[in-house]
Amino acid sequence: MAEQATSPRARQFGIAPGVLRPGPLNAITDVAGVSVGHVTLIEGEGVRTGVTAIRPHPGNIFQHKVPAGFASGNGFGKFAGSTQIEELGEIETPIVLTNTLSVAEGLAGLVEWSLAQPGNGAVLSVNAVVGETNDGFLNDIRGRHVTKAHVLAALEACAPGPVAEGCVGAGTGTRAFAWKGGIGTSSRVTPRAVGGHTVGALVQTNYGGVLTMDGAPIGQRLGEYFLKDQLDDHAGDGSVVIVLATDAPLSDRNLKRLAARAFLGLARTGSCMANGSGDYALAFSTAEGVRRTPERRAAATTIEDWPNDAISPLFQAVVEAVEEAVCNAMVAATGMTGHQGHRLEAIPHEALAR
Amino acid sequence: MAEQATSPRARQFGIAPGVLRPGPLNAITDVAGVSVGHVTLIEGEGVRTGVTAIRPHPGNIFQHKVPAGFASGNGFGKFAGSTQIEELGEIETPIVLTNTLSVAEGLAGLVEWSLAQPGNGAVLSVNAVVGETNDGFLNDIRGRHVTKAHVLAALEACAPGPVAEGCVGAGTGTRAFAWKGGIGTSSRVTPRAVGGHTVGALVQTNYGGVLTMDGAPIGQRLGEYFLKDQLDDHAGDGSVVIVLATDAPLSDRNLKRLAARAFLGLARTGSCMANGSGDYALAFSTAEGVRRTPERRAAATTIEDWPNDAISPLFQAVVEAVEEAVCNAMVAATGMTGHQGHRLEAIPHEALAR
Amino acid sequence: MAEQATSPRARQFGIAPGVLRPGPLNAITDVAGVSVGHVTLIEGEGVRTGVTAIRPHPGNIFQHKVPAGFASGNGFGKFAGSTQIEELGEIETPIVLTNTLSVAEGLAGLVEWSLAQPGNGAVLSVNAVVGETNDGFLNDIRGRHVTKAHVLAALEACAPGPVAEGCVGAGTGTRAFAWKGGIGTSSRVTPRAVGGHTVGALVQTNYGGVLTMDGAPIGQRLGEYFLKDQLDDHAGDGSVVIVLATDAPLSDRNLKRLAARAFLGLARTGSCMANGSGDYALAFSTAEGVRRTPERRAAATTIEDWPNDAISPLFQAVVEAVEEAVCNAMVAATGMTGHQGHRLEAIPHEALAR
Amino acid sequence: MAEQATSPRARQFGIAPGVLRPGPLNAITDVAGVSVGHVTLIEGEGVRTGVTAIRPHPGNIFQHKVPAGFASGNGFGKFAGSTQIEELGEIETPIVLTNTLSVAEGLAGLVEWSLAQPGNGAVLSVNAVVGETNDGFLNDIRGRHVTKAHVLAALEACAPGPVAEGCVGAGTGTRAFAWKGGIGTSSRVTPRAVGGHTVGALVQTNYGGVLTMDGAPIGQRLGEYFLKDQLDDHAGDGSVVIVLATDAPLSDRNLKRLAARAFLGLARTGSCMANGSGDYALAFSTAEGVRRTPERRAAATTIEDWPNDAISPLFQAVVEAVEEAVCNAMVAATGMTGHQGHRLEAIPHEALAR
Repeated sequence: MAEQATSPRARQFGIAPGVLRPGPLNAITDVAGVSVGHVTLIEGEGVRTGVTAIRPHPGNIFQHKVPAGFASGNGFGKFAGSTQIEELGEIETPIVLTNTLSVAEGLAGLVEWSLAQPGNGAVLSVNAVVGETNDGFLNDIRGRHVTKAHVLAALEACAPGPVAEGCVGAGTGTRAFAWKGGIGTSSRVTPRAVGGHTVGALVQTNYGGVLTMDGAPIGQRLGEYFLKDQLDDHAGDGSVVIVLATDAPLSDRNLKRLAARAFLGLARTGSCMANGSGDYALAFSTAEGVRRTPERRAAATTIEDWPNDAISPLFQAVVEAVEEAVCNAMVAATGMTGHQGHRLEAIPHEALAR
Repeated sequence: MAEQATSPRARQFGIAPGVLRPGPLNAITDVAGVSVGHVTLIEGEGVRTGVTAIRPHPGNIFQHKVPAGFASGNGFGKFAGSTQIEELGEIETPIVLTNTLSVAEGLAGLVEWSLAQPGNGAVLSVNAVVGETNDGFLNDIRGRHVTKAHVLAALEACAPGPVAEGCVGAGTGTRAFAWKGGIGTSSRVTPRAVGGHTVGALVQTNYGGVLTMDGAPIGQRLGEYFLKDQLDDHAGDGSVVIVLATDAPLSDRNLKRLAARAFLGLARTGSCMANGSGDYALAFSTAEGVRRTPERRAAATTIEDWPNDAISPLFQAVVEAVEEAVCNAMVAATGMTGHQGHRLEAIPHEALAR
Repeated sequence: MAEQATSPRARQFGIAPGVLRPGPLNAITDVAGVSVGHVTLIEGEGVRTGVTAIRPHPGNIFQHKVPAGFASGNGFGKFAGSTQIEELGEIETPIVLTNTLSVAEGLAGLVEWSLAQPGNGAVLSVNAVVGETNDGFLNDIRGRHVTKAHVLAALEACAPGPVAEGCVGAGTGTRAFAWKGGIGTSSRVTPRAVGGHTVGALVQTNYGGVLTMDGAPIGQRLGEYFLKDQLDDHAGDGSVVIVLATDAPLSDRNLKRLAARAFLGLARTGSCMANGSGDYALAFSTAEGVRRTPERRAAATTIEDWPNDAISPLFQAVVEAVEEAVCNAMVAATGMTGHQGHRLEAIPHEALAR
Repeated sequence: MAEQATSPRARQFGIAPGVLRPGPLNAITDVAGVSVGHVTLIEGEGVRTGVTAIRPHPGNIFQHKVPAGFASGNGFGKFAGSTQIEELGEIETPIVLTNTLSVAEGLAGLVEWSLAQPGNGAVLSVNAVVGETNDGFLNDIRGRHVTKAHVLAALEACAPGPVAEGCVGAGTGTRAFAWKGGIGTSSRVTPRAVGGHTVGALVQTNYGGVLTMDGAPIGQRLGEYFLKDQLDDHAGDGSVVIVLATDAPLSDRNLKRLAARAFLGLARTGSCMANGSGDYALAFSTAEGVRRTPERRAAATTIEDWPNDAISPLFQAVVEAVEEAVCNAMVAATGMTGHQGHRLEAIPHEALAR
């Protein structure tokens, strides 16, 4: 992913929130087995959108489901698949992110992909997981330019390793605060004495508020923030989808608790989860010991468990990784002109350097 | 709808659960303004599916939203739109029911329809509401034969008046208990002294258990029930989507409470909400006094309210209407042969008569 | 418990809902290790109340917590301890039931008892679980006659074996439908081929509706039911607390699903979960393999699990046991005169016999 | 309240988070009608606890209930009354805060007080609202020194005007981060053009994490923070109860959304809502137009409503007021020695000044 090579990251500007250290890539792919794929659609004057797919592990996830937990920070959004995740505590497809009016295509792609996987010939039900944010400022969203084929392509593009950030995939056309948003990722490793687990976050940023980065009031300094002119100028609106992965062997209940902490990281960047936001988080575990294999799903079994009393370091890891993932998304994003000549600038890097 | 004219209904067999009287049509369309449309797909040997659409009122529902509440009895299903309903307490599209693997097409149809409505030219976000059950026993569900065009046709077919029941629309290929299921509807009117409101229910029955009808142990008498042979034979599996309408001016919180009562009606028919079930209920109010018009959504407003303390008769109405709607679905359904030669018989009417 | 010896039970009248067989005692105590204790307060003209305690196992439950799930059918009640149960998926005290205005005394008793248990000398936090219903028709509830000492006595009275039903403990002064309510219990055993687990239910009945027993419309036949005179006569009001025990090794999420099924059993008796009802259910597992021992709570561990896909027979067991427990409560209850000369009759047994 | 006069506040140190201005008192009592009362128990070497009461309005709140919404950030706590708040969307008693093992006394006091209010002679059911945090480090919590009489005294002490902060009432013995915690309060007023409403917050701080104040990494600078030594040293543990008041005419659903934003403010101070935390928020509206008077509760009525689309400035107000209330609690708290000689210092003011 060549574009990743040149994208700046928040740490280059000294933005390194928290007290835990990141993993080697500082990305969701630090959780072994996780892969990410983007399809970026930039066409003509108005198409500025895309698809990002996250696969929890390289195997057949429908047969080898992973435990998962979901949380809604503010539900003005169209996240698909949530009720089955809540009921059964698991996901059985990759996660697809796209734009608000293309959830149908996201579902169609995931269903088709799932039915076609080797070993799934008898599958009659698929709980496809699709998140979205609204890129309708830069993108001709009403044109619904994302197709099932783009979704399939993003799924096929999934790869481990560094993750492209900024104006790619489902972040191609998004806005964050008053600037260009996009995809960002980060990770944290808990100290060995308290587990040594990895938590990774990937965010699709399209929201607003009063931007702070690692405590610095960037939004106010740059004169762009929610309620600036004592008016509800919708600078607070927008959405964010947050995907969390961990290798800790967590129950679905504890994964749901991880998901709930994602919004704490969000808060630290200056969000108040405005009315118009669809703010969702999904957390899953890749640990073999909790994987829901055909055997484990059929009869009495034993599963691993990392208990309640030892989980707080993982909560801290979530908060930090989400905050930094948002910063990475904004730092990597570049200025873009799109639908109807609308334009968003990148957040000025020189301001961050100060 | 000619087929409706000849479909038998449960009351013809003396099945009239409860203590409240039904409305004139004994259908969800007794709630003024509500309309229902079916598209029934029966093609070749394997296509046994369809679409049912419910419009809460004849106007532009995106602009004139209705308050709504959602409840999940057992979330092994793919109901779309629930998180936004929960957050904002309203729906902004009609409700579409179809099969499990066609939710994408349901969404695509609702989005297209919503964008195209007069007055919606600036709409960039649509929370489409789609429910489903799995008709994969009689229907070639993996073939995904429902298209966006079918969804649009069901929306256009919406009409007030009597509602076709049984093997129509989204109930075309469904199974209920050991027999053919389908669409059913019923209604109740609360006594004038306690409000005189109407509650209507429409159900897409595809679930199982130990069938009872108005207290009679039909399933056991006919020798077909969950755990009959001391085995989990999946006779308990399947799903049901329940749509409730009322003209009472209820808050979204109280509509959510109505939705939660739908499962009590379901219980009276013999469901234990088995693991494999996607059992969901959605309730909305058509009252003008609670409608979320552009004016009411823009600034301080006043709304009507039927208070907590006076709501119990409406709860009773829900329980009764849902129970009878299920009975109507099963009585109206006819035997059907479908995919791979699978066959379901109608529940034997002579047994009901006894 | 001598009073139990002479109390009639529903099966004597042919009331035996469902398709599964009960355990040897047809009581919650069929789940090995579970014990129940009552303190019955009948004093003077106005005191008609009491306390019922349920201990999940004979050991130190604070140190050896049990996984648990909670569900609220209608939350017009004062159930204490629910948020911690939901967060951590466990209970750490016995369960105490009493009247609505005596929850404080229930908590005080459980806290004192927990702090005093051997091995709990360093305990600084106790999540006491207390349920209640309102016996204010027969009982001088404003007098708050239940004391901490009564709660401690009920905890000490806990014993395995047959469970006294009817006008005992927390059911002493309750009303159900138009008659005297009380405590009831029942159990079910799932077929060996699908697990062979036991589910037990104990109910504190104080609610109303349109009474049906095993499908028979008793309420209507006896002319006493909600909305009888086309009026909201509050015959639907009241509350019920339902405690479920099982020896199946279930996760807290699946125990929550069991709890949610309790209301299906309730529905089969004629409840619509009226506005004034505090209808709650709590389910716990006694299985050693899921017990949260000090070791399991401290570090990575393994736990047993009975999976989603095999759980439906347990759901059916819950529905049946709850329905029969309610019937047992009403059959065992005897007529009583109380506060301000109020009187409730027992449900006429001769009517049940028909 | 003389002690208040001399307590420092965060703004004296330049800590003024956010973009909105506070009300005249910068306290929850800026919301007209709200009053606060403290009872502080400092006795001998070990008693360091107390009670704080908040009355939403000076009238009979049982008869004139206020709409309310509840949110649980992390439910390792004993908050009483939550299920009825969720079901009915209202509170009917003042809110009492105390220590973890004294919730029983809080309930007993509120019940007694409610039954005794003029006009409540027929009341048989009271949903008392009690929050708590664990002051067991400085306080002999197992001694349960709070009595019903203290609770009644706090209720009687409720007064409008400035609110004492720091080591008073329910904050007497609490710990926050590595220092002495306590009670804090703050408020925000939304711009006139977007409503001109007031939001007030009161917090009982007893939690930990990695302290930041208005973006400054105080915890790291002072060398005291969660995971400092790569160990789970429980510096993240503890709890916080957050009470929010507003004069905006909000529905209970939107009050619940306000409550959910409280945790965003918490996040900005450095909390990850650790496992051991009982982090709860309750929001109520004092607006006359939404008050649940006897008339409004009896029959069809009209209520005022501030709609979804205009609510974001109130969300921002919550985030800011909670963050500053926490800072005020810590700035006002003074060093204290208590049970078993345990000692907590105040956060060093000279460090804040930098």
